[in-house]
Amino acid sequence: MTTEDRAAALDTADPLRHLVDRFVTGGGVQAYLDGNSLGRPMRVTAKRMRTFVDDEWGGRLIRGWDEGWFDLPLELGDRIGAVTLGAAPGQTVVGDSTTVLLYKLMRAALALRPDRPEIILDRGNFPTDRYLAEGIADETGAVLRWIDPPFDGGVTADAVAKVISDRTALVLISHVAYRSGYLLDAVGITGLAHAHGALVLLDVCHSAGSVEMDLDGWGVDLAVGCTYKYLNGGPGAPAFAYVAQRHLADIVQPIWGWMGAADSFEMAQGYVPAQGIRRILSGTPSVLGMLPMADTLDLIDEVGVAAVRAKSVALTSFALELVDALLTPFDVEVSTPVEPTERGGHITIDHPAFREIIPRLWRDGIIPDFRLPAGIRLGLSPLSTTFDEVRLGVEAIREELLAHPT
Amino acid sequence: MTTEDRAAALDTADPLRHLVDRFVTGGGVQAYLDGNSLGRPMRVTAKRMRTFVDDEWGGRLIRGWDEGWFDLPLELGDRIGAVTLGAAPGQTVVGDSTTVLLYKLMRAALALRPDRPEIILDRGNFPTDRYLAEGIADETGAVLRWIDPPFDGGVTADAVAKVISDRTALVLISHVAYRSGYLLDAVGITGLAHAHGALVLLDVCHSAGSVEMDLDGWGVDLAVGCTYKYLNGGPGAPAFAYVAQRHLADIVQPIWGWMGAADSFEMAQGYVPAQGIRRILSGTPSVLGMLPMADTLDLIDEVGVAAVRAKSVALTSFALELVDALLTPFDVEVSTPVEPTERGGHITIDHPAFREIIPRLWRDGIIPDFRLPAGIRLGLSPLSTTFDEVRLGVEAIREELLAHPT
Repeated sequence: MTTEDRAAALDTADPLRHLVDRFVTGGGVQAYLDGNSLGRPMRVTAKRMRTFVDDEWGGRLIRGWDEGWFDLPLELGDRIGAVTLGAAPGQTVVGDSTTVLLYKLMRAALALRPDRPEIILDRGNFPTDRYLAEGIADETGAVLRWIDPPFDGGVTADAVAKVISDRTALVLISHVAYRSGYLLDAVGITGLAHAHGALVLLDVCHSAGSVEMDLDGWGVDLAVGCTYKYLNGGPGAPAFAYVAQRHLADIVQPIWGWMGAADSFEMAQGYVPAQGIRRILSGTPSVLGMLPMADTLDLIDEVGVAAVRAKSVALTSFALELVDALLTPFDVEVSTPVEPTERGGHITIDHPAFREIIPRLWRDGIIPDFRLPAGIRLGLSPLSTTFDEVRLGVEAIREELLAHPT
Repeated sequence: MTTEDRAAALDTADPLRHLVDRFVTGGGVQAYLDGNSLGRPMRVTAKRMRTFVDDEWGGRLIRGWDEGWFDLPLELGDRIGAVTLGAAPGQTVVGDSTTVLLYKLMRAALALRPDRPEIILDRGNFPTDRYLAEGIADETGAVLRWIDPPFDGGVTADAVAKVISDRTALVLISHVAYRSGYLLDAVGITGLAHAHGALVLLDVCHSAGSVEMDLDGWGVDLAVGCTYKYLNGGPGAPAFAYVAQRHLADIVQPIWGWMGAADSFEMAQGYVPAQGIRRILSGTPSVLGMLPMADTLDLIDEVGVAAVRAKSVALTSFALELVDALLTPFDVEVSTPVEPTERGGHITIDHPAFREIIPRLWRDGIIPDFRLPAGIRLGLSPLSTTFDEVRLGVEAIREELLAHPT
């Protein structure tokens, strides 16, 4: 069986194959393998945007705020909670960027543990998470306790156990590592943190819409995730924040704005935070930016996130199978856990020639991501990616390695 | 001459009258008098959104970041600077909400004046500005020095002079007051602040796209403004921040994210802020949310902000003339300065019956804003509002006062 036949057979057997056709294609793209940086738009999204501009914004004008926009951040938050987070209503809200929401929740977490000076985080975390923690340490005097996870793995409960203590306020950690794809043991790390009286803030940017989660069941305290990856919200779409019900009465974030106030339209003297998750809001979120994610939430709701995860595992497994067969002869190294339960929806492979190869792949419409120092990251968005795209991508990398030996 | 004839004559003589037709209408709206809460969309905007989703997002996918999206916040910032702020390039950036940008610049201002504990602000300022200052006082120990401006006016240089001292770090003030429409003496207040070694942060939400500004010439230090009012950016569109060139090397904002780092794609250890205005960014701004404002920036650029301001003054003058003729017999009070040079693009009138009148006006497609305790605010967006809409609005208010005497 050729790899082409094998990919075709997998596509034929894929119960979600028909959904791929609901996404916009074009631009000379043959294989889009970066859905975990920016998801494709759905075909219905362009129409949704046009209708919104002409009929809702243009027709309802300021009345739109009373007719749905004001509650849209909470409504979308609840849907994200139901569809992908495993979160009961009233704990999730959309607004701001991932960065700003992480800032607010990190500061809020420190305020919930005022007698504890330390934040645990890892050097493999996404830059924004690390930079924010550095800035907060700079302004509040918090002490950062760094974990240095292996290059081809992630943060284990054992690694956290070595640095956690009754001085720990917060463990800040990514559910799926942005480079290696390592899927951490959220239950184990949360239990460990709670045993020491610390809080957990989970960055779920690379798991939302791809990996099954049960934030309520796991006992996670706080989470932030983005919507422009597997939720196809569009470039820079507003992010979401989750705050477990038990913290909602006490949590205070530092950016006090009118959208998070108890009565936004009273325009009163003196800030009083809203009851519930609305208090995490500050200013007005972009309504246009919040619209596209609704289409993908509908889609995940239609099939269930378990089916999405099953396809995700099948895609990454096929990619690893092809890498093993076609690329390891060129000394390409796999930086992602081979055990499916230990990885998210993307895989990263490393080779010194990859930096030079990427522009040529992009020119030919084969679009993976590049991650320093020498990684190609294949982000396989389950709803919009075919097995044949994976084959095209890995074969194209092989062709480049053959044509330009180092 | 009837008021109808008078409005028709003003529309006929209006050199910007033809531009009104470039905006979306519909939704049963007869008179839209709230363009300073949410501007109308332009007709080209729906098409722009559709093209973006299908061709740019859908076609270019992740490549879009290299091909323009990454620099869009700076490019739009420069255009806002040129078209309405009187700011040379490199000092203005789009991103986050007004609230988050005000937070970042207030915190940054305090850091630029570390030996000074006081912030001057006024009780007539928009809630977000006041709430933010309260939150920052709570977290940093800054002391708030409040000015209480008259209900039907705003903050004068004399009022600032009474509270300013060498303990003042920052004067936080709105260029046009959100309720009364009072247009403050930015030159006088900035000069006064500088004479005492303090900085000025000007909230230009209600002046951007409506009032002529010369931030560079006035010597203003910092400014923040929104784009969903007179710039027609759509509900919740990202805001902009201005930092005068002389502060760019030293300014540090507290939310350290990857979009504001010196090299966003290096993913390095340790945050180093970008050179220039990019350092004000934190996370990824919504690209979809940033698109519509470009259409109005084109339009203002076409006619010049002086012509926009001239029409704005004519609209508010006509509104005040009609209020005087038609509404003062019902004891309606004008809360906006009658001198054109002392007001922005909206006027507020007060009457105890207005709270009950507003829903009936809205039902009939006459859409002004309501401001507690008893104000109707007429926000007359110069590019999209006709003199006849002003007439319809004031006459409808008169009809309601006649039909439902208090």
